[in-house]
Amino acid sequence: MKIFEEIESEVQSYARAFPRVFNRAQGEFLYDEDGNEYIDFLAGAGTLNYGHNNPVFKEKLLEYIHSDGITHGLDLHTRAKQEFLETFNDKILKPRSMEYVMQFTGPTGTNAVEAALKLARTITGRENVISFTNGFHGVSLGSLATTGNSHHRGAAGITLGGSSRMPYDGYLGEDMDTTAYLDKVLSDSSSGVDHPAAVVVETVQGEGGINAASFEWLRNLETVCRKHNMLLIVDDIQAGCGRTGTFFSFEEAGITPDIITLSKSLGGYGLPFAVVLIRPELDQWRPGEHNGTFRGNNFAFVTATAAINEYWSDDKFSRGIRAKGEYVAKRLEQIVAKYGEGNFTSCGRGMFRGINCVNGDIAGKITRAAFQKGLIIETSGADDQVVKFLCPLVISEANLKRGIDIVEQAIAEVCAKEDSIPETVDYFDDDYQIDAGDETDREVLKRAS
Amino acid sequence: MKIFEEIESEVQSYARAFPRVFNRAQGEFLYDEDGNEYIDFLAGAGTLNYGHNNPVFKEKLLEYIHSDGITHGLDLHTRAKQEFLETFNDKILKPRSMEYVMQFTGPTGTNAVEAALKLARTITGRENVISFTNGFHGVSLGSLATTGNSHHRGAAGITLGGSSRMPYDGYLGEDMDTTAYLDKVLSDSSSGVDHPAAVVVETVQGEGGINAASFEWLRNLETVCRKHNMLLIVDDIQAGCGRTGTFFSFEEAGITPDIITLSKSLGGYGLPFAVVLIRPELDQWRPGEHNGTFRGNNFAFVTATAAINEYWSDDKFSRGIRAKGEYVAKRLEQIVAKYGEGNFTSCGRGMFRGINCVNGDIAGKITRAAFQKGLIIETSGADDQVVKFLCPLVISEANLKRGIDIVEQAIAEVCAKEDSIPETVDYFDDDYQIDAGDETDREVLKRAS
Amino acid sequence: MKIFEEIESEVQSYARAFPRVFNRAQGEFLYDEDGNEYIDFLAGAGTLNYGHNNPVFKEKLLEYIHSDGITHGLDLHTRAKQEFLETFNDKILKPRSMEYVMQFTGPTGTNAVEAALKLARTITGRENVISFTNGFHGVSLGSLATTGNSHHRGAAGITLGGSSRMPYDGYLGEDMDTTAYLDKVLSDSSSGVDHPAAVVVETVQGEGGINAASFEWLRNLETVCRKHNMLLIVDDIQAGCGRTGTFFSFEEAGITPDIITLSKSLGGYGLPFAVVLIRPELDQWRPGEHNGTFRGNNFAFVTATAAINEYWSDDKFSRGIRAKGEYVAKRLEQIVAKYGEGNFTSCGRGMFRGINCVNGDIAGKITRAAFQKGLIIETSGADDQVVKFLCPLVISEANLKRGIDIVEQAIAEVCAKEDSIPETVDYFDDDYQIDAGDETDREVLKRAS
Amino acid sequence: MKIFEEIESEVQSYARAFPRVFNRAQGEFLYDEDGNEYIDFLAGAGTLNYGHNNPVFKEKLLEYIHSDGITHGLDLHTRAKQEFLETFNDKILKPRSMEYVMQFTGPTGTNAVEAALKLARTITGRENVISFTNGFHGVSLGSLATTGNSHHRGAAGITLGGSSRMPYDGYLGEDMDTTAYLDKVLSDSSSGVDHPAAVVVETVQGEGGINAASFEWLRNLETVCRKHNMLLIVDDIQAGCGRTGTFFSFEEAGITPDIITLSKSLGGYGLPFAVVLIRPELDQWRPGEHNGTFRGNNFAFVTATAAINEYWSDDKFSRGIRAKGEYVAKRLEQIVAKYGEGNFTSCGRGMFRGINCVNGDIAGKITRAAFQKGLIIETSGADDQVVKFLCPLVISEANLKRGIDIVEQAIAEVCAKEDSIPETVDYFDDDYQIDAGDETDREVLKRAS
Repeated sequence: MKIFEEIESEVQSYARAFPRVFNRAQGEFLYDEDGNEYIDFLAGAGTLNYGHNNPVFKEKLLEYIHSDGITHGLDLHTRAKQEFLETFNDKILKPRSMEYVMQFTGPTGTNAVEAALKLARTITGRENVISFTNGFHGVSLGSLATTGNSHHRGAAGITLGGSSRMPYDGYLGEDMDTTAYLDKVLSDSSSGVDHPAAVVVETVQGEGGINAASFEWLRNLETVCRKHNMLLIVDDIQAGCGRTGTFFSFEEAGITPDIITLSKSLGGYGLPFAVVLIRPELDQWRPGEHNGTFRGNNFAFVTATAAINEYWSDDKFSRGIRAKGEYVAKRLEQIVAKYGEGNFTSCGRGMFRGINCVNGDIAGKITRAAFQKGLIIETSGADDQVVKFLCPLVISEANLKRGIDIVEQAIAEVCAKEDSIPETVDYFDDDYQIDAGDETDREVLKRAS
Repeated sequence: MKIFEEIESEVQSYARAFPRVFNRAQGEFLYDEDGNEYIDFLAGAGTLNYGHNNPVFKEKLLEYIHSDGITHGLDLHTRAKQEFLETFNDKILKPRSMEYVMQFTGPTGTNAVEAALKLARTITGRENVISFTNGFHGVSLGSLATTGNSHHRGAAGITLGGSSRMPYDGYLGEDMDTTAYLDKVLSDSSSGVDHPAAVVVETVQGEGGINAASFEWLRNLETVCRKHNMLLIVDDIQAGCGRTGTFFSFEEAGITPDIITLSKSLGGYGLPFAVVLIRPELDQWRPGEHNGTFRGNNFAFVTATAAINEYWSDDKFSRGIRAKGEYVAKRLEQIVAKYGEGNFTSCGRGMFRGINCVNGDIAGKITRAAFQKGLIIETSGADDQVVKFLCPLVISEANLKRGIDIVEQAIAEVCAKEDSIPETVDYFDDDYQIDAGDETDREVLKRAS
Repeated sequence: MKIFEEIESEVQSYARAFPRVFNRAQGEFLYDEDGNEYIDFLAGAGTLNYGHNNPVFKEKLLEYIHSDGITHGLDLHTRAKQEFLETFNDKILKPRSMEYVMQFTGPTGTNAVEAALKLARTITGRENVISFTNGFHGVSLGSLATTGNSHHRGAAGITLGGSSRMPYDGYLGEDMDTTAYLDKVLSDSSSGVDHPAAVVVETVQGEGGINAASFEWLRNLETVCRKHNMLLIVDDIQAGCGRTGTFFSFEEAGITPDIITLSKSLGGYGLPFAVVLIRPELDQWRPGEHNGTFRGNNFAFVTATAAINEYWSDDKFSRGIRAKGEYVAKRLEQIVAKYGEGNFTSCGRGMFRGINCVNGDIAGKITRAAFQKGLIIETSGADDQVVKFLCPLVISEANLKRGIDIVEQAIAEVCAKEDSIPETVDYFDDDYQIDAGDETDREVLKRAS
Repeated sequence: MKIFEEIESEVQSYARAFPRVFNRAQGEFLYDEDGNEYIDFLAGAGTLNYGHNNPVFKEKLLEYIHSDGITHGLDLHTRAKQEFLETFNDKILKPRSMEYVMQFTGPTGTNAVEAALKLARTITGRENVISFTNGFHGVSLGSLATTGNSHHRGAAGITLGGSSRMPYDGYLGEDMDTTAYLDKVLSDSSSGVDHPAAVVVETVQGEGGINAASFEWLRNLETVCRKHNMLLIVDDIQAGCGRTGTFFSFEEAGITPDIITLSKSLGGYGLPFAVVLIRPELDQWRPGEHNGTFRGNNFAFVTATAAINEYWSDDKFSRGIRAKGEYVAKRLEQIVAKYGEGNFTSCGRGMFRGINCVNGDIAGKITRAAFQKGLIIETSGADDQVVKFLCPLVISEANLKRGIDIVEQAIAEVCAKEDSIPETVDYFDDDYQIDAGDETDREVLKRAS
């Protein structure tokens, strides 16, 4: 491990939580150099919906490489790309009566978001984009302006402009539909919220703490977009590709986004890949306006095609996810009822779920304890307070149970050692008292430069 | 009037509503070239609290000019400045136990706001400033970013950055304390609202539609500022100098701003003048960092000193404003009860009041009818839907009655001709339905550049 | 003086260099409380071209105030405004065959610049504005982005965007016409300098160190503006109103700006006042888009009208300025030949001149010595290295001589005490060696936040 | 090809110039579906320095996939990463006495540039970054601000801030060292160019038109960086990995960048991959501040390791590149001497070379003619006026000759049909006349919004 300490940058993150050298992976398992096996409930942060090194895709990929198929061809037409486009059209778009064109951006989610924001701004001639509290859309500068996390925002070193922040579903308490607030500021010509080019939204916020928007809220959001002539961009990078039970996470809500971003599990095998789906009349790009060296990763075309053919030719996979999702939901409900003094809550949708432990310290203890027991699982949320269940969708029922059992055991151990579990602060409760703190506690303001 | 049409810019505004050439003014009266008299319920948009050409100040000013007192001295020390500082300190600050230093900026309100924002940003090392829906703080680029009005914002021709917009008191309905929302986003490290340098707020929003914040809201706002170590800037340019009944508009709320901006009526005689009051420990300006040719208008020092001596040596003036304010309030309540089918509402505080006619079209008809009857009165609000009562504080009771009578008569006439008065939209009412409009009504999005 | 120390902000600048309390002024003289007389070679930083309290204007002003003429009328038509517009049209514009409309902005130079930039951006739909090295256009946020001075820029506390900086005339050495560089970057579609809305330029840079652009350079600049369809904004706030010998500073160059800003001496008496002149076809403002409480200072209308009538009805004043300007030029040439070991240089045009002493330390010693001898004179330039001669244009020949004699004497004394006068660095000289400094001298870079 | 027309976005670029469906590639050859063979002088825009599907790397990759090596592991430690770090350290860094840590960013060049800019800004606490005319650093928003191309910049739809543009080596004519200009503006406290965090520079500008900076200019640039305490970032994404004859393109210049970005050919096999090299004391990242799903592409670790072992274990490969580079140089010199009426010029360094045909129309005809003859070659530069020779470094001498022969033939044909070849405009020539155009030709300025 010495070489990592010596010459890999301090920016490392996951490697700190799971300090092993891994060298093999299969399905829902990771193996380290010493041969230890770990169940993977992190799954590449949503990239490995089909598991590690899925054998069906692997075969296709090996064949392609053997035959000297195009590896790198910039954005040239290749047979691999052709097959991917045809398969995606036939198996994903057409059955859902969706009409979209596809843009291959640089193979990272943030690059797809950058492209979506550029297009929305250019065709509307407006700069402002509505983004939501606790949203995450990437960390390159354009995307970062719409991302909520202050740890990431603070690293920009420069003003992040062009986005107005609005409260996500539930942020102002259960009684307030926050789309009404959005509708009001956009109807009010002196609200100070400039007429936006677009709204960018996740249907389930992953990094933000596994917050699932209600279908009604999503439909209201779409209506507000139509009323105010702004584009609806669904960032389906983490929630898409089956995670919530349908290919796109918004299918059950019945909305029609103007632009959709996909990445992570789209490539199937964990390979870098990202696309933007655009309603055809909005595809007003000029040639090469948004470019990049690696747009169109041909290996990913091959494995993405295999993934669609294998899992999305009928609804069997989808039904399986929902069944497993219900099992996870039931288990998490039982856990939060049993532990955490009534202060833990479960959250999420489909196989995109979590346990909110109120406090990052407790959640961190739980994931560390789980790792000791052979489970890789991470936290998310503003304070890392949510234990995030994001296992491969193809996981066996036995291993799914085993993984959750490990988490439950870890929770039991951690809670036994805690004096008490704090309650979530409700800022909108009548009993809530703001505490200004002591005069003496306050930061002394002094000239910064 | 030909010369105005020929060579004055199209940017003219008030001159369009009151197309006369005025040449004399006294107290609450304006006179045009033809000798017509008008009662002035506009009062220089709050600049003429002491009436036009107040005779007490006029005498002091004439004397100063006669004696060749310094007219222009950049920011050099002058006897006129000295007397103003001493008077302001003795009669305004000390009796209120307020400790502030004073900065003389360029003699416009917006310049004072620019200075306040700069100072807040520089000493905290943060860029973000919280501003509120419907707020107005001026139209130079720094101030404009905190101003809500889209007519003004749209004229910038460039991105307005550095401010996060929050809902003002009452904006999310009566049940929601919007400072709780502010507290929540600032407590939430992934809210996407960057830690602010400051909050900038009007206690009563003038241009925004005569919205008066409650004292409790202001106190909560102050507490949130203390909790999150950000500065509280009260923009008292329009609401200050007695308009609400006390010299500063926030006195009754019992809060202690870190920075206060004053302008408009501060100079007393309608002369350009603006200052920033700064808590001494925050006065970390370096020499000349914020400069300007006309900072420190000596004529205004003379008349401002006279105004303070004349009106703020005891509490008589203050009591008089409150009495008149109550009279105005009572009259407006009677008017909204009698006209407008129950849809008009009265608003404001002290002698800073208005009638919300829901709709700018109706309000405009009312002010035009009033002008025909010899009253100068204007509208404000996002849709110009509020008839704004902003007469000189020194107005005689008889003329105050006469002016309100004229408005009432104008309202009676206008309402008689309207088929019906629309209701205010309540976005948070359960019965409210968002209307997305027809597909065919929608703007066709096409590439803007 | 105690009150100034106690409650005037640390932002004070000129008051630090001339620590007296002044209470009377006349023509080219200022008087302090102790009755000391000072010749004023600062002249309100160019605001007092007609001297302090000019008796002709004073009489008009007193008469206006006596008669209760409108003092404050927002932007309402007044007789005083009417007379100013007619006079300016008849005596300034028409004789020069200039067609412009006039916008009255808030009464500060920076507000006029803000308006000019907004208009240029809005009507072109472009954001970028070309500004020049060492330019000064004010310190509100929009203007500040075009101002070069880092002391002022640093106080913004926020990113200053929307301007590309280009080298002013002479900045790249005598052989390089910097408009060719501008032409090249604008002709080159991958230069990275976005197509600008406008160029904003001073014909003589005052704060930047009394740098006078050549007429040829100004003409080339105009041609580049025409070629690339961008607006030419001349900021004539300091150089205009006769300072260089003609009313507008660009008359001799024969160029036709699209937009002109005026302030400082325009009001005549030192009163806050600022206007924007706009070619009629570009006056595309919508009503009230750029507004402000004090736009249209009626006192200034009165004194500005008087100034134009008195000084600009024929060419006598203009000829007088040139004659005096030549005298100043000659004297300064003699001084730089005699003192400073050949390293001092003289600079400027008309009565807008200076001596470049290479080094701010030396220039500061000179102005301090002059003040001891009864002369008020300031420095300018990036390092305050230029002694700036900016006396009233109406100064008597005797006092002009007396003032320059004092400076010469001060220079003689200061130079006698200096070991040696440094040379100006010529970055483009073949012999120039960049010195990277010692490794150990360098700032240790550490995370700033 | 129908599917591409139907559902691939209009943003396609290279696919328009080379409208074939490719399905196989080997070394310097691409093959289309119909079995046609093309010599590849585009080489993935610099990504395929080792040729297509290099058999040595292919074997390693197949083996890795077969053995279920980690494909996707976020930033977890893997054996593949370990081997890459060790190999890069032993074979690249140590032999050059370079000490750097390595950051794995999202696998695209623009992501590496985003990370580099963030780090530079955060650790210096400054926002400004110096970038150069004709520079290209990617199109996500942070990188795009430093990219010169207006086609890409225009697609942002939002202000691109945070960068000051300076002229690249040669931009102001041969006599002017543009680093002297940079030194001057940074030494001048009122230049308006804010103290930068860093300079970002390519040693040879690829997209900008194959402009090679001189070694002396690069050394002077480094000295200016040291003098003004700002970081030197070399973007070696296109010029690095051997393209100019050494692994890093700056080795011969003898400079030591603070930060280096690498991508394109680093992965060896054309797989998405990007890294940032950081001087150890500047590695002040906090864990996870700059993150992303695909940072650390394990397949690329495998092939990158193979590439380094195969080609950089001794200096044989490097010597080969130089030899071939000299051959290309000689041929291009002969071509420009023979064709283009003396107006064509050759440019570049090592195997990174081009022919400047003055005019994009002519260059486009040449590359189209070459494609007809079985050669894939592209243009670059502001007007696409440069025919860009960027073939695999491993190309056989025979094929290199064959490719150049094709270009020569294409040039001969195109020139035979042209009436005349235009001269390059020299803006700094004394005879150059700016043409403002007809009044009637000019764009009518009208309000944009």
